[in-house]
Amino acid sequence: MTETNRSWVLDSYPDGMPEAGNWRLEEAPRPTPGAGQVLARAIYLSVDPYMRGRISKAANYAAGVQLGEVMHGGAVAEIVESDHPDWKPGDLIETMGFGWREWAVLDPETTGPNGLRRVDPSLGPIHAYLSYLGMPGVTAWLAMQDIGRAKPGETVLVSAASGAVGQVVGQIAKDAGARAVAVASSADKLAWCEEIGFDAGVNYRERADDLADAVKEACPDGIDVFFDNTAGPIHDAAMKNLALGARIVICGMVSNAGTFDQPDMGERHLRRILVARARMEGFLIFDHMARWDEARRALAAMAADGRLKFKTDRLDGIKHMPQAFVNLLTSRNFGKQLVQAGPDPTA
Amino acid sequence: MTETNRSWVLDSYPDGMPEAGNWRLEEAPRPTPGAGQVLARAIYLSVDPYMRGRISKAANYAAGVQLGEVMHGGAVAEIVESDHPDWKPGDLIETMGFGWREWAVLDPETTGPNGLRRVDPSLGPIHAYLSYLGMPGVTAWLAMQDIGRAKPGETVLVSAASGAVGQVVGQIAKDAGARAVAVASSADKLAWCEEIGFDAGVNYRERADDLADAVKEACPDGIDVFFDNTAGPIHDAAMKNLALGARIVICGMVSNAGTFDQPDMGERHLRRILVARARMEGFLIFDHMARWDEARRALAAMAADGRLKFKTDRLDGIKHMPQAFVNLLTSRNFGKQLVQAGPDPTA
Repeated sequence: MTETNRSWVLDSYPDGMPEAGNWRLEEAPRPTPGAGQVLARAIYLSVDPYMRGRISKAANYAAGVQLGEVMHGGAVAEIVESDHPDWKPGDLIETMGFGWREWAVLDPETTGPNGLRRVDPSLGPIHAYLSYLGMPGVTAWLAMQDIGRAKPGETVLVSAASGAVGQVVGQIAKDAGARAVAVASSADKLAWCEEIGFDAGVNYRERADDLADAVKEACPDGIDVFFDNTAGPIHDAAMKNLALGARIVICGMVSNAGTFDQPDMGERHLRRILVARARMEGFLIFDHMARWDEARRALAAMAADGRLKFKTDRLDGIKHMPQAFVNLLTSRNFGKQLVQAGPDPTA
Repeated sequence: MTETNRSWVLDSYPDGMPEAGNWRLEEAPRPTPGAGQVLARAIYLSVDPYMRGRISKAANYAAGVQLGEVMHGGAVAEIVESDHPDWKPGDLIETMGFGWREWAVLDPETTGPNGLRRVDPSLGPIHAYLSYLGMPGVTAWLAMQDIGRAKPGETVLVSAASGAVGQVVGQIAKDAGARAVAVASSADKLAWCEEIGFDAGVNYRERADDLADAVKEACPDGIDVFFDNTAGPIHDAAMKNLALGARIVICGMVSNAGTFDQPDMGERHLRRILVARARMEGFLIFDHMARWDEARRALAAMAADGRLKFKTDRLDGIKHMPQAFVNLLTSRNFGKQLVQAGPDPTA
C-alpha cells in the first residue's frame, strides 16, 4: 500500500450478469482528511450480494452507484490520521461506507450503516466484522429473531447455506434446537455445512431437474422456516414444501443477479402461502441499526464457546475486487467473500 | 319446501372455470335425525369463493368434495326436529357444514367451522350470519386485526372490494382512520364502495391495460395494507405500489378460479417484498374459531351504529345454486352472493 489511492469506479451498468469489465481501476493521490474527519486505510474489503442492486438503474432500497463513482462497499480499516477526538491512529473500524478503494476519508459523525463501528480484535479475526460479527451475521441473527423464530424440532431450510448469512443462520437454527437443512451448489459446500452442524443438504445443481423432490426428501415434515438468500428455482422448490405456519425470510436474491433489471417471471405461490397460512417477510438490516450491538454480542458469545464456526474465502489484492464480486454472484466463492487490500496488523 | 330433499351433488370436476353442469340435482326423502342429532331446513345457502378449492383434486386446506357427494357449503337454517337438549324446533342456526341441500341432519356436538352457531335475529337480518356477521365478516375483522393492522392515515387497498369480505375490510379500514381504496369490476360496484365509505376506486376491467398506473393514481403514497381477495393481475398491480412496511393479507384468489389446477405463472415480487420490507401472510378463518364471537360482537356493534353497511345479492330457489356460484367466480354478482332455499321466518 502506497501513497497512491487505487479505487474501482463503475464504468458501465451491467447488461445482465455483471462482469469484471464493468469497473475500471483509477489511481489518485492518497487523500487528506478535513476538519473533524479521519483518514483510514482498507485492510479487508467486503464483497456482498446486495452490491448487485447498487449497479442497477432499477428502483431499489439504496441509491445506486453513478457511472464514474467509486463502487460502494464495506471494509475493515485502520485509522491513519484523525482530526476527531473519538478516533486515533491505529484504531480499527468497520463501516459499510468505505468503497472499493485503498484509502478513504470518513466522517465519524455519520450515522447508520455508513457510520464507523469499532472493531475489537479480541472477539475474533478482525475480518469477522465483515461476516459473522458484522452485517451478514447481524442480518442472520435479527432476521431469525424477528421473522424466522425457529422452535425446537422445527425444520429450517437455508438457501446459499455456505454463504456469509447462510452459515450463521444454520448455526442459529441448531442453537434453537431446530433441524437445519442446507441448499448449496456443490458437495464441498454441503460437507462444510454438515461440519458446522447442518443436519441435511441439497445440491441444487445436481438436483436441478427435481429440486422440489430433493427438498422434500431433506425436509420430510415440511419447512417451518425458509431463510431465502437466493430467490429463483430454490425459492420455488422450497415454497412447494411449506409446513403449516411457515415463516419465509426474504433476505436476498442472488440467483437473479443475471436478470436483475427484468421482471422476475415464474411460478407464483400465493395459494401455497394461503394453504400453509405462511408468512413471508422482507428483511433489511438497515432498519435495525439500533440492535446491531445486541446481535453482535450474541454472535460473539456463540463463537466464543464453539457454537459458531465460519468459513471465509479471501483473495489478496484490491485488483481482484470485480472478479471476487462476479465469483460471488456465480457461486464460485466458498464462504464469505473478502478481498485483502492491505496488511492486517493483528495477523 | 316439501318432504323431498333436493341436493346438489358434484357430477364432475371442472376443467378450468366451473360451469353449472358440474353439479346435478338429486332428490331424496327428507331425512330423519338419529340419536342426539337435529334436523334443519335451509333458509339461506351461502355461496363463497373458497368453494372453488373444494372441487379440485389439487391439495388444499380442506378435504375436497368427492364425485357423487353433496357439495359443501354453509347455511342459515331452522331446527325442525331435535334429539339434542341444547336445540329445539324453531331455533335458528348458522353452520358451514350444511351442504347445498334443503334438509340436513346435523350433529350439535360437531366443533369447528362445521359446528352449529346460534343466530340472533336482533343483530341484523339472519342472512347476515353468512356475510358480515359470519365467516366473511369474521375473516375481514380478524385478518385486519392480526395482519392488516391499519393505522390512521395509512392506505388500504382492497381487491374484490364489493364482495362479502371486501366491503367489511373497507369499512374496518375507515373505522381505523385509514384511507380505503376499492378495486372492483364495474362502475356500479365502485359507486357502492364509495357510498359505504371507500375514498377511491379502481375499475380493473376499464384499466386492465395500465392497472399498476391506475392503482398508483388511487394510492399516490403507496399501499400500506393490501387485502387481497383475488390474486392475478390485481395482485401484480398492487405489489408494484407497496409502501415501506406494507402488510399483504392473502385471503382469496378468485381470479384464479378458471386456472385453479394449473401453476400460477406470472411476475414474482420478491424484490419488491424485500425493498418494501413487506410482510405477506395467508389467512384462513378456520385457525381462529375461538375468536369468532369476539369478532361478531365487534361487527354487530359497527352495524348497530351505522359504521357498517352491506350489500347482498340474493337468488331465490335452490335450483340456482350452481349458477350463483359461477356468477360469483366471474364477477357477475354484486355484493355477498346468497341463495334463498326456503321461507325466512323473521322476514
